Amino acid sequence: MNLRGIVATNLRHLRHAKGLSQEELADRAGINRNYIGMLEREENAATVDMLERIAIVLDADPIEFFRRRS
Amino acid sequence: MNLRGIVATNLRHLRHAKGLSQEELADRAGINRNYIGMLEREENAATVDMLERIAIVLDADPIEFFRRRS
Repeated sequence: MNLRGIVATNLRHLRHAKGLSQEELADRAGINRNYIGMLEREENAATVDMLERIAIVLDADPIEFFRRRS
Repeated sequence: MNLRGIVATNLRHLRHAKGLSQEELADRAGINRNYIGMLEREENAATVDMLERIAIVLDADPIEFFRRRS
């Protein structure tokens, strides 16, 4: 799995763990509503600035987006 | 330190550990020569696609860019 795929999987997992929709997460992070969906579908390469904002809303360390899940 | 700063510090550390200049790293990763310097100066927000390419050249797991150094 490439890095977009790893980030997508972890983002979806962390978002679901918080019980947030893509739109709720986007609104709380102050980012475009389409952006979360594009990341989860691996259609866009996340920037570290956006991952930092998303991680704050998810109460996660950004490093969690990069862990390989077995 | 914000996430750009963490990535910048880790990138510089990993690049030095390989004994590569910014230009050598950029050439081997097939990316613009100015890009590595901009990341190390925190002037640009790295994308996961670029970090993946840089990590391959550095023989590193991309997660290494996100570790907080004490």
